[in-house]
Amino acid sequence: MGEKIVIAVDAMGGDNAPNEIIKGSVDSLENQNIEIILLGNEEIINKQLSLYAYDQNRIRVVNTSEVISTSETPTTAIKKKKDSSLVVGLNLVKQNEAHAFVSAGNTGAILAGATLIIGRLKGVERPTLATLIPNKKGISFLSDSGANVDTKPSHLVQFAKMGTIYMESVMNIKNPKVGLVNIGAEREKGNTLVKESYILLEQQDINFVGNVEATEIPYGEVDIIVCDGFVGNVILKHSEGFAKMMLEMIKAELMADSASKLGAILSKNAFKRVKKKFNADEIGGAPFLGLKSLVVKAHGSSNHQAIKSAINQCVNFVDADVINKISDKLSQSAVE
Amino acid sequence: MGEKIVIAVDAMGGDNAPNEIIKGSVDSLENQNIEIILLGNEEIINKQLSLYAYDQNRIRVVNTSEVISTSETPTTAIKKKKDSSLVVGLNLVKQNEAHAFVSAGNTGAILAGATLIIGRLKGVERPTLATLIPNKKGISFLSDSGANVDTKPSHLVQFAKMGTIYMESVMNIKNPKVGLVNIGAEREKGNTLVKESYILLEQQDINFVGNVEATEIPYGEVDIIVCDGFVGNVILKHSEGFAKMMLEMIKAELMADSASKLGAILSKNAFKRVKKKFNADEIGGAPFLGLKSLVVKAHGSSNHQAIKSAINQCVNFVDADVINKISDKLSQSAVE
Repeated sequence: MGEKIVIAVDAMGGDNAPNEIIKGSVDSLENQNIEIILLGNEEIINKQLSLYAYDQNRIRVVNTSEVISTSETPTTAIKKKKDSSLVVGLNLVKQNEAHAFVSAGNTGAILAGATLIIGRLKGVERPTLATLIPNKKGISFLSDSGANVDTKPSHLVQFAKMGTIYMESVMNIKNPKVGLVNIGAEREKGNTLVKESYILLEQQDINFVGNVEATEIPYGEVDIIVCDGFVGNVILKHSEGFAKMMLEMIKAELMADSASKLGAILSKNAFKRVKKKFNADEIGGAPFLGLKSLVVKAHGSSNHQAIKSAINQCVNFVDADVINKISDKLSQSAVE
Repeated sequence: MGEKIVIAVDAMGGDNAPNEIIKGSVDSLENQNIEIILLGNEEIINKQLSLYAYDQNRIRVVNTSEVISTSETPTTAIKKKKDSSLVVGLNLVKQNEAHAFVSAGNTGAILAGATLIIGRLKGVERPTLATLIPNKKGISFLSDSGANVDTKPSHLVQFAKMGTIYMESVMNIKNPKVGLVNIGAEREKGNTLVKESYILLEQQDINFVGNVEATEIPYGEVDIIVCDGFVGNVILKHSEGFAKMMLEMIKAELMADSASKLGAILSKNAFKRVKKKFNADEIGGAPFLGLKSLVVKAHGSSNHQAIKSAINQCVNFVDADVINKISDKLSQSAVE
């Protein structure tokens, strides 16, 4: 690898693959330091690429013959489909031919493949899938968002530490606030997992501000939201469903009487701004942290904008040397 | 007790006590079958009652000298403050002087007091606090919503059964759909608790439709949402916080340019309708099910409308003979 940052992109994963993935990859070349390796059916990819004007030295296509679908059992698929875009892409990262891998494909397969092929950093008990979620003020880091559903307090502590490094290094937030998702503000509240985690979190060299109730999450009261992957996945999906349902309901009511209908036309720009704030496409994907290299899971419904954001996020991540920082911090704690 | 349904109401609990609680109680007399016992400081209550015209034979005031605040440790408070509105009210229900007890006070104290004083029905492993939450289509029953944070699969099964009885008998929903909150649609998804619960739920005489992802909850895809109290409390509080934040954000954006500002004035009625759909005040409180009598926790911020709804909900509950139905169903399963 030269000075450029090389991102391997799974052209075959996601609802809008391959066209939107390819367009997002081409768009990402705006950043002069990026080089892309597109993985998938060479013929299809080249045909699509021919629609765009771009620097051909900066996109390389690697042909793969298999595709892992969303319905396949992750570990079986990884072991059987050696020539899938996912497995080949992860191997490129493992062999240092790419700095990071981005895919909008089957989440379970990506997590299983990343763990099996790239492997955990020393000292990391469980890698965490961390989603960046929009809130009133900006963005929070939600960890874990679905990879680890039966967790121990020590896992939550590691999620908090990795989150702190990520938000400081990649998002430039100084001394980011860490909150533990709980059902009350008081330290004695909650289930066994969070009660034990609270005590451990207090002892760490992070800015732990205590419990955060779910009412406060949409307001962005904390930068790093710590919880097990079951609770995190519920929060993530509930945000998506709730925002969508509310906007649909508002739209329906705005169409239900003629004054409101006119009002809706006049307030079009206000609604555009609201939608923009909730637009996950500009945030990037979900980094899978604690591995020896960076793997980013883009949303299954990613469009080109979302893929471009995910690629740019990888660049910031590599520039900020996050892997080494996590390795330093977590291997230390493993020794203690 | 005659033919009337007698509801004991804690006049001292909640953010808007006692005035809104008293007004809601007076308003509830619209239903000719209701009689109210108001518990609290007699002098304050009588002064407030003197502001209204109502049938004085149908509201009785019972003086109590102590108040349990939200900051007190539940079990200690229950044991020490024998002359609190909460303890006296629960005792009235226990002694069959009232059919149900309604309070907007300290949730922990209400749950602890209800369990200690009124006691569980035979066969019920854990009583459940079930909140009725608004969704796009109507209302869902969320159980558990915070009383049981470390649960076993058998508890979730009982929550599902009690929910089925409640939604059938009180809400008149035929063959209500039961969904298990999970992080994927497939049966093999989730943590240990939900995987084991899934298998048990399939074997029950209820309309179990499988997993429900949090994206679907706001759409009202199921009538009974089954989860442990930690997850349920997160869903409940996240709904509250998210709806509030979104409406605030929309309002701010509507005020940010002059066309939108005018549009907002024109669409006033549409927003009123949206707010009405999310108005928890008209739904009632959270029934605490599995006890020998009915206890309803009204929201801490309840106004008179919410208290009136909670009282009416008790009447429907008593009319539908829910306690006996739960007792029949759950004592059977305990024998099996």
